[in-house]
Amino acid sequence: MNSGIVENLINELSRLPGIGRKTAQRLSFFIIGMPKEDAVSIANAIIAIKENARFCRNCFNITEDETCSICLASRDKSKICVVEEPSNLIVIERTGIYKGLYHVLLGALSPIDGITPERLKINELVQRVKNGGVSEVIIATNPNTKGETTAQYISQILKPLGIKITRIAYGLPIGGDIEFADEVTLSKSLEGRKEM
Amino acid sequence: MNSGIVENLINELSRLPGIGRKTAQRLSFFIIGMPKEDAVSIANAIIAIKENARFCRNCFNITEDETCSICLASRDKSKICVVEEPSNLIVIERTGIYKGLYHVLLGALSPIDGITPERLKINELVQRVKNGGVSEVIIATNPNTKGETTAQYISQILKPLGIKITRIAYGLPIGGDIEFADEVTLSKSLEGRKEM
Repeated sequence: MNSGIVENLINELSRLPGIGRKTAQRLSFFIIGMPKEDAVSIANAIIAIKENARFCRNCFNITEDETCSICLASRDKSKICVVEEPSNLIVIERTGIYKGLYHVLLGALSPIDGITPERLKINELVQRVKNGGVSEVIIATNPNTKGETTAQYISQILKPLGIKITRIAYGLPIGGDIEFADEVTLSKSLEGRKEM
Repeated sequence: MNSGIVENLINELSRLPGIGRKTAQRLSFFIIGMPKEDAVSIANAIIAIKENARFCRNCFNITEDETCSICLASRDKSKICVVEEPSNLIVIERTGIYKGLYHVLLGALSPIDGITPERLKINELVQRVKNGGVSEVIIATNPNTKGETTAQYISQILKPLGIKITRIAYGLPIGGDIEFADEVTLSKSLEGRKEM
């Protein structure tokens, strides 16, 4: 018996991941209290992304132009960092330490779910390397089974092309506590030890 | 160096309460992957609320018409439940046990913040009671200092009108554990004990 538009907004926001009914309610009443132009600009940002977002024809990052801003920028074009999703790219960008290009696979290999190499942007990666100028491919797929399988596969495909292929390091998370580290991470951390 | 529209959506979603940058990022990429019509319907729900939401002229619930659906429904018009905010009304409605009307104060007394009785919809409540037909006012303001002050004030204002005035009960939350109850709640729970 609540107002239709409020109930509707709560329902719509509840579709989002991690937004339960209570959170959706809290957000809805916050939006009701917001200046109109602020709320409209949130709505417009959602519409803009659906109308204008597409994949960069070069690296498959999300962009509103044919080529994304990273590919167009003055970056180290001899390095390509391979990630599963555009969201992974953002996280790496935020570290500020990587100055090369990216290649987004748009997924990870998972034959059980029908995700075979042809479903990912692997051929496009091979083509970029074949076009020349690339000296290193850094594989930054996720540190889990699918990501590891994908990394192995790409590594084998690229090896004949004679470039350096690296995988991001496994280890203990910074700020973590050895006591709470799982055994696999701890083993990887020991294997990957560096001289001080 | 990320795509402008993605960064824009992340920034816009970060304005919402409890939505930090990481959550906004996760939501943004979820929206990017959603069917377009679903994303547009979220955006439209936000716009609709800003364009059409107003306060019920009777009880100050949020509505898109002059009078809200609760006031228009066939409910027990002899009871008015007084709440601070429309969001409190929703929570009570969801219990399904209350069949009377509401009155939303749009805040709670807080002289220190300049929230005096005239700033709240208290005169409008008095007027509704004076119009007749009301036998009980249930004060469901929050169980904190401001809510309690507001409840006391309203109670004194309404007393001369000769109706029943009640306050929602304090006590232990269901599913809670006495061991973890704070002393004030536990005292209130003892005071409010009922014969079995």
